Amino acid sequence: VRGRGDGVTIAVDAMGGDDAPASVVEGALLAAQDEGLTILLVGDEARLRDQVAAHPAANRIRLVHAPTAVAMDESPSLVIRRRRDSSIWRATELVKTGEAHAVVSAGHTGASMATAFFLLGTLEGVERPAIATILPTLKGAAVLLDVGANVDSKPQHLVQFALMGHVYAQRVLGNASPRVGLLSIGEEDSKGNELTKEAFKLLKQAQINFIGNVEGRDVYTGDADVIVCDGFIGNVALKISEGLAEAIQQVLRREITQSFFGRLGFVLLKPAFRRFKRRVDYAEYGGAPLLGINGVSIICHGRSSPKAIKNAIRVARDFVAGDVNHHIRDDIARHFERPAGAAPDGRREFPGR
Amino acid sequence: VRGRGDGVTIAVDAMGGDDAPASVVEGALLAAQDEGLTILLVGDEARLRDQVAAHPAANRIRLVHAPTAVAMDESPSLVIRRRRDSSIWRATELVKTGEAHAVVSAGHTGASMATAFFLLGTLEGVERPAIATILPTLKGAAVLLDVGANVDSKPQHLVQFALMGHVYAQRVLGNASPRVGLLSIGEEDSKGNELTKEAFKLLKQAQINFIGNVEGRDVYTGDADVIVCDGFIGNVALKISEGLAEAIQQVLRREITQSFFGRLGFVLLKPAFRRFKRRVDYAEYGGAPLLGINGVSIICHGRSSPKAIKNAIRVARDFVAGDVNHHIRDDIARHFERPAGAAPDGRREFPGR
Repeated sequence: VRGRGDGVTIAVDAMGGDDAPASVVEGALLAAQDEGLTILLVGDEARLRDQVAAHPAANRIRLVHAPTAVAMDESPSLVIRRRRDSSIWRATELVKTGEAHAVVSAGHTGASMATAFFLLGTLEGVERPAIATILPTLKGAAVLLDVGANVDSKPQHLVQFALMGHVYAQRVLGNASPRVGLLSIGEEDSKGNELTKEAFKLLKQAQINFIGNVEGRDVYTGDADVIVCDGFIGNVALKISEGLAEAIQQVLRREITQSFFGRLGFVLLKPAFRRFKRRVDYAEYGGAPLLGINGVSIICHGRSSPKAIKNAIRVARDFVAGDVNHHIRDDIARHFERPAGAAPDGRREFPGR
Repeated sequence: VRGRGDGVTIAVDAMGGDDAPASVVEGALLAAQDEGLTILLVGDEARLRDQVAAHPAANRIRLVHAPTAVAMDESPSLVIRRRRDSSIWRATELVKTGEAHAVVSAGHTGASMATAFFLLGTLEGVERPAIATILPTLKGAAVLLDVGANVDSKPQHLVQFALMGHVYAQRVLGNASPRVGLLSIGEEDSKGNELTKEAFKLLKQAQINFIGNVEGRDVYTGDADVIVCDGFIGNVALKISEGLAEAIQQVLRREITQSFFGRLGFVLLKPAFRRFKRRVDYAEYGGAPLLGINGVSIICHGRSSPKAIKNAIRVARDFVAGDVNHHIRDDIARHFERPAGAAPDGRREFPGR
C-alpha cells in the first residue's frame, strides 16, 4: 500500500501548534529528509528562512509566505471570513489549486476543519466528513471516528463513518480486513440509544466486516480495528482517555518519587517506562485525518513534537499514495447504490492531479 | 453528616457478583463488624449459614432465604415477571416493606435497577432515576452521573441528575459546596450537542454551583465535583476509563517484566504501585447509588472484593444517615417550584421509617 514520497507534495502550516514554528519546521525537515517528500512550508517567511536554510534537506522545502496565523481563541467562522492571509488558509488553498496533495496542521482544529470544508468541499456522496483518530490498543492500533467533526449525527452518517474508517484502515494502516464495531453501551444487538440502534441495523447491511456493538471497555483491547460513533461521544471518549492517561502518570510519578527506593526503582525501570511511552504515544501515530473532504487534511495535536509532525506528514503521504479518497467515494457510491465515478461534472478527489 | 450504623438495617443480595456468595458474605460480615450495622443477608440460606456462623459478627447478620439467583444473561423484564423468588427481588422487597433501609447488590445491574424501579418507584418529582459513580481524581473524588440508567435523556433530566448529584456529594461525600459541571466537548458555553446546549441554559438557573461545560480531559483533574451527562455518554466514559486503566497496567507489566533490571526495579517500586492502586481502586469508593428512587439501592461492580462490598454497605449507611432522598425531593420540588413535602398522599422516601 505505502508508496514512496517521490512526486508527493505536502503543504504544512508552519505557524500552527504550541511550539510553532520551531517544532513544525523541524518535523517538516525530518519528513523531507526521511520520506523524500516535497514540503511547502507555509508561514512567516522571514521567521522560517533561517531554520530551514542550514538543514541538509533544505532543497526539498519551499517556503510559501503567509503574513498571519490563526490564534487559538478565534472562531472558525471568523477565520473563513477574515483570515484568508493566515497560514492555515494559504496551506489549504495550495491543496485546492493542486500545488499540494495534502495539508498538515497542528493549529486550531476548528479552523483547519472549517477551512478544509470551505475550500475543498466534501467528496461526492459524503454527507458529513469525520475526524478519525488512531488509538494504541493491546494488539496494535484502532481507528476511532468521529471524534469531533459532528454532533447530533444521524444513523446514515454513522454508516458513512464506518465506510470511511474501513477504507482508511485498509489503505493507510494496511489492514486488509478491518473489523468494524459500533461504540455502544452493551454488546447485545438490542443495546444502545436511538441513534446506535438504528445505525446497527444499517451497518449489518454494509459491505464491511461489522462485528456489532463494542463497549467502552473494549476500545483498548484491540478487538475492533475501526470504532464508529457520533462526534460528541468520540470526542468525550478521546479526551477522557487523554485525561486519564495523564492523571495516572502524575499519580504514579508522585508515589514513586516519595521514597529513596522508589526513586532507585524508577531508575531501573526507565527503559521499561520509555518503551511503554513509545507504545502509547500519540506522536507515533501522527495526526488525525479529516475523512470525507475533497482533498487531504491531517490535523495534529497542538502539542505535537517534531516527531509527531513528521509522522503526520507520513500519514498524509500514505493517504495520498493509498488513494484513500478514491476508495471512499467508490465505497460510498456502492453502498448508497449510486454508480461510482458517475459525477456529471467529472469532479475528482485530488484537484489538479 | 455521617451517622453511626446503629438502627440502620441493610439488605444485601448475597448471590449477586462474580465471587458470590463468598465475597459478598465476607464483605457483609466486615461491614457488620466495623460499622455496627444490622445486615439482612438474602440468598440460599443453606449455603450462607456456615460462612456466617463462625464469624464474631454473626449476631449482627440475619439470613433471609431466597431460593434462586438471577443469572447475568437474564433480561431485566424477565426478572420482574418471573424471578420474584430471586435474591435481588427479595432483598429489594425488604426495603419496600420497611424491614431494611437499603439494598446492596453486586449482581446483574439491569436487574437491580429494574427491580428497584418496579418495587420502590421513583421519588416524588423525579422523572428519571440515574446511576451515579464515584471516580477518583487528582484532588479527591468526583460524582459522575448518569452512567447507564437512561439513554436519550432530555435537558430537564440532566438538570435533575445535577440536583441529585449535588445532594449526594453534599450528604454522602461531605462536600459542602460541590462544583457541578456538564460533560461536553468544549469549555465555551456555546459548545456541545443539542442536548447539552439546552441543558446548559437550564443549569445556569439551578440553585447549584454550576461551573459550566467540562471536557472529557477535565474529568480526572478534580476541577468538578459532580459531572452530569446522559447515561449513554456516561456509560461509555466510565467503561472506556476502566478499559484504558487496565490496558495501561497490562502494557506496563509486560514492559517491566521483560528484563532483569525491570523486575528488580519493580520490586523496589512495589510500595509505590500499591499506594497508587489504592488511590485509584474503585473498591475504595464502594458502590454506585441509584439516585431518584423511593428507597436506597446501591449497585456494585460484579467483580467486587469483600472490601468493595463493605464500602458499598458503608455508602448505603451514609445515604440513609444523610437523608439523601429527603433532600433530593426537596431540591427538585424547589427547582421545579412545587412546594416541598406537599404530596397529598403523604408519601415518604423511606417506607416504614
